[in-house]
Amino acid sequence: MKLGRVIGTVWSTRKDENLVGMKFLIVRDLNLDYSEKNSFTVAVDSVGAGVGEIVLYASGSSARQTVLTKNRPVDAVIMAIVDKLDVSVKQALESEE
Amino acid sequence: MKLGRVIGTVWSTRKDENLVGMKFLIVRDLNLDYSEKNSFTVAVDSVGAGVGEIVLYASGSSARQTVLTKNRPVDAVIMAIVDKLDVSVKQALESEE
Amino acid sequence: MKLGRVIGTVWSTRKDENLVGMKFLIVRDLNLDYSEKNSFTVAVDSVGAGVGEIVLYASGSSARQTVLTKNRPVDAVIMAIVDKLDVSVKQALESEE
Amino acid sequence: MKLGRVIGTVWSTRKDENLVGMKFLIVRDLNLDYSEKNSFTVAVDSVGAGVGEIVLYASGSSARQTVLTKNRPVDAVIMAIVDKLDVSVKQALESEE
Amino acid sequence: MKLGRVIGTVWSTRKDENLVGMKFLIVRDLNLDYSEKNSFTVAVDSVGAGVGEIVLYASGSSARQTVLTKNRPVDAVIMAIVDKLDVSVKQALESEE
Repeated sequence: MKLGRVIGTVWSTRKDENLVGMKFLIVRDLNLDYSEKNSFTVAVDSVGAGVGEIVLYASGSSARQTVLTKNRPVDAVIMAIVDKLDVSVKQALESEE
Repeated sequence: MKLGRVIGTVWSTRKDENLVGMKFLIVRDLNLDYSEKNSFTVAVDSVGAGVGEIVLYASGSSARQTVLTKNRPVDAVIMAIVDKLDVSVKQALESEE
Repeated sequence: MKLGRVIGTVWSTRKDENLVGMKFLIVRDLNLDYSEKNSFTVAVDSVGAGVGEIVLYASGSSARQTVLTKNRPVDAVIMAIVDKLDVSVKQALESEE
Repeated sequence: MKLGRVIGTVWSTRKDENLVGMKFLIVRDLNLDYSEKNSFTVAVDSVGAGVGEIVLYASGSSARQTVLTKNRPVDAVIMAIVDKLDVSVKQALESEE
Repeated sequence: MKLGRVIGTVWSTRKDENLVGMKFLIVRDLNLDYSEKNSFTVAVDSVGAGVGEIVLYASGSSARQTVLTKNRPVDAVIMAIVDKLDVSVKQALESEE
């Protein structure tokens, strides 16, 4: 899974019939110190995540293993909201990509 | 899912028998401010997207979860046309990759 | 799907029993102006593509959705030979990665 | 599979119902000399790995092929703890990415 | 599939129960002239490949399409040993990534 922050929403009225009612969130990828990477993904939300929250998202076929996304054409799903990261000190001080 | 703009079409007469009648669109990947990335993909269209439109596309096995693409050898499908992005201001002002 | 040019063949006599009789082609990834990228992949051919031809190939589980590749340990398949690309002018003039 | 070192844990109380009781570990990707790459992933642990241990993890749908992760929305699983690497000398001396 | 050279072995006693008896090989990715890339993967061997041999490996769910790897948590499998590459001259002379 990847670590990200929800930073917005994608609005779409014309979409595949299997996607009606789904909410698409924009998730910015994060480093372990919560600084932002340049990359982002658009993910369906299965846990009620709001803008600003730190989340984990799963990609690929694994994104279809929630009740909400089963058999739907989605390749990313937010499956957990992060309370905190417990990283050993040595790692936390090192720079990231 | 990834954000992209439809910029063209791929024409092909010799293709796998499971692909007859499918339309292959060229999708340029976009940043959140709609500027273009260098990368692109070729995706099947399940929502009637036209050249110039901003879309979301799903990759991998998820691309086969539409009525049109089920059991077909395609690894990318346009599953939504984007009306607009709602991005929190702080994010929108930051530079992207 | 990705755009590529067939540039060669991989010869192999010792291979998984499910792969006997399959032809492995070397496909160089291409930009939209047909210039070559540095990356390449080895793909099974389901459409009779020859060296020099421009093709589309599908990756991952989608590569197993042809009669030839079903249930085989292959992760890339050439599923279409490209006649031509129709790219809007603005895009065609821009540089690519 | 990829080589990594467990460097921490992700705590999450609000998560998909299929993930209750699972432990999410932060895995830093490693080079063959155990030096660290910049990238990391969050993986479910199926082998009792602890912080500091060198592991192998599988990604994508393969991450769901353990008793623990079957049909769960997870895309990475630690499936082995590494005792040692046996690399031919020529390779070990070369620099890595 | 990707082209690689077997450069070593990963030893592991604590691993998922579905992996008992499997051999994990370290595969360095190669360019078409057999020069080495910086990247590597750890793959299960389904064809009896030895250290130093040039191989093809398949990734993702396709890695589970051999008798040995079916339903196992592995995401890369060596499915062919390469006898030789037949690359058109123009390509062979060009530099690679």
